[in-house]
Amino acid sequence: MPEQLADTVDPANWTCPAPLRDQPVVVMGHGGGGALSAELMEQVFAPAYGNAVLTGLADSAVLELGSARLAFSTDSYVVRPLFFPGGSLGDLAVNGTVNDLAMSGATPAYLSAAFILEEGVELTVVDRIARAMGAAAEAAGVTVATGDTKVVETGHGDGVYVTTAGVGLVPDGVDIRPQRARPGDAVIVSGPIGLHGVAIMSVREGLEFGVEVSSDTAPLADLVAAVLAVTPDVHVLRDPTRGGLAASLNEIARASGTGVRLRERAIPVPDAVANACGFLGLDPLYVANEGRLVAFVPPAAAEEILAAMRAHPQGGGAALIGECVAEHPGMVVVSTGLGGTRVVDLPLGEQLPRIC
Amino acid sequence: MPEQLADTVDPANWTCPAPLRDQPVVVMGHGGGGALSAELMEQVFAPAYGNAVLTGLADSAVLELGSARLAFSTDSYVVRPLFFPGGSLGDLAVNGTVNDLAMSGATPAYLSAAFILEEGVELTVVDRIARAMGAAAEAAGVTVATGDTKVVETGHGDGVYVTTAGVGLVPDGVDIRPQRARPGDAVIVSGPIGLHGVAIMSVREGLEFGVEVSSDTAPLADLVAAVLAVTPDVHVLRDPTRGGLAASLNEIARASGTGVRLRERAIPVPDAVANACGFLGLDPLYVANEGRLVAFVPPAAAEEILAAMRAHPQGGGAALIGECVAEHPGMVVVSTGLGGTRVVDLPLGEQLPRIC
Repeated sequence: MPEQLADTVDPANWTCPAPLRDQPVVVMGHGGGGALSAELMEQVFAPAYGNAVLTGLADSAVLELGSARLAFSTDSYVVRPLFFPGGSLGDLAVNGTVNDLAMSGATPAYLSAAFILEEGVELTVVDRIARAMGAAAEAAGVTVATGDTKVVETGHGDGVYVTTAGVGLVPDGVDIRPQRARPGDAVIVSGPIGLHGVAIMSVREGLEFGVEVSSDTAPLADLVAAVLAVTPDVHVLRDPTRGGLAASLNEIARASGTGVRLRERAIPVPDAVANACGFLGLDPLYVANEGRLVAFVPPAAAEEILAAMRAHPQGGGAALIGECVAEHPGMVVVSTGLGGTRVVDLPLGEQLPRIC
Repeated sequence: MPEQLADTVDPANWTCPAPLRDQPVVVMGHGGGGALSAELMEQVFAPAYGNAVLTGLADSAVLELGSARLAFSTDSYVVRPLFFPGGSLGDLAVNGTVNDLAMSGATPAYLSAAFILEEGVELTVVDRIARAMGAAAEAAGVTVATGDTKVVETGHGDGVYVTTAGVGLVPDGVDIRPQRARPGDAVIVSGPIGLHGVAIMSVREGLEFGVEVSSDTAPLADLVAAVLAVTPDVHVLRDPTRGGLAASLNEIARASGTGVRLRERAIPVPDAVANACGFLGLDPLYVANEGRLVAFVPPAAAEEILAAMRAHPQGGGAALIGECVAEHPGMVVVSTGLGGTRVVDLPLGEQLPRIC
């Protein structure tokens, strides 16, 4: 719903539009990873839990536990349909949590897997999801170590919901979090954007865009290791899932108090994604990804990091798409091909509900 | 559904009755913590994930991570109603996972909290659940460190589902797992049983049993610390939730290959629970608890451990209820007051769905 936000809004002072704020019930956008999700976090969860860790806005928490620096993250997966071109809920449930850990520089080690099953769902469906999780875990080098299963009555679920949590160790000397973005940082995306969202849209709406678009779901921890081998001084990593690149960059800009300037022509948008977005009236910057990361790195290391990404199977399409600037702190702008600029706002919700 | 199982069944060779096994869909009992849950774990999840950790049957996995011994556990909470005498889904979501960690002797440290919200649920309900979680976390000495929120359409959820995962450190020298039960062990329960299940039943069915019964939901890590202060050589700890004491004891008997013999008159069943169970035709041994533990300990330490429990706020009603024996390995029997014995089988599912 980015079009609902005027380009002149100051992101630092943005508030939820009054009609939604006055509506005292949960709406789909509260799960969309945009402004409504942030509001729920800031106004409900953070005060309730009474701690500052949650408000750090990172994909995973980095915690001291004994002598270890532990990364810890969780996500529930409610994507529909359960199976789509390029993957399934099971792949997302592993790769999504693995990637959240990797975005703090951690080496993912163990996952938990909790299923909420709807009475009457076929056991073969549960089996396919579980096998997809097992295969994805093996590919990502993690072990599913503990789990749970609950069953709810027909009409109180939707086949299969899975919640995974993950733990991993953060190497010494690595400190990757949104607050560390600083003016001058190079902004790199690891490959073409928008594939997951368009894949889901195409199967859900029965649309075809000339070629079948497959989700990009993939584990990114090994790609992160390749980047950290260039320099441990990576400032920010983020996997732009719900809300797309626009949501991730806005969160980083706000958390760090810097501005982000993108070059529109440098952003890798596959033709199929551009066509689908044109047809549907969407902006690729807001479309979800499940196998991409955006990195804020010192400018001196940018070329070498780009080369390392491009040499990796998950980073073949890596591109330098912009930089961090001191101007317009907290705001993301994009230079268009025509010499103008436009503001890229934090989306209100997600263009497409239940994308992951 | 314990009455469906003949007393002459050999638990070691028990299999799911043919009608259910041939039914290729998920039934409520798959989430009940009994034989159907075990079958799903053994036949679907363990092969899919391809590892032995999951089949250890403990409430939490104990993992090596760097130099740390980490306990890691997860549960989804789908209890209905969301609020009940003595607590709420929020209390269970914290105490349940804290207790699973504590049952491996770990000191619970951090929790994750993932919400699946149904579109249209009132934000005040979400807020009440979150505040209950915050208060329970503070009482248990843990921090909610990371979270997620997804929203599903009306009719695909039930207000609020919460999945928590937890991590904690296991102290050196502590090795608590079901396999360590051995003949001679004293079997101790930390207090009166059946309160949680009867509390849920009473509000859900609108029944009254003379006095209001409140759930026993409570964090047990501090009680475990008091037990470990007597001796680190505690063999097994278990919180008898879904499936009650019967399910927990059967799992321990099977995992260790020992028998368990209980003295019926020693088992602390409050009058209100006994009355409710009599009225409803249930066996208190199968009714869920959310603030009790059962401990298998060396007989020489039993008296001192009982005293330590009774001196603790969560263990005031602790009782020695039986012992571990070499006879009838894998089987739990109870000596009745009349001089006879009966087999206590693993339940098929849960007497009451969505108890936690």
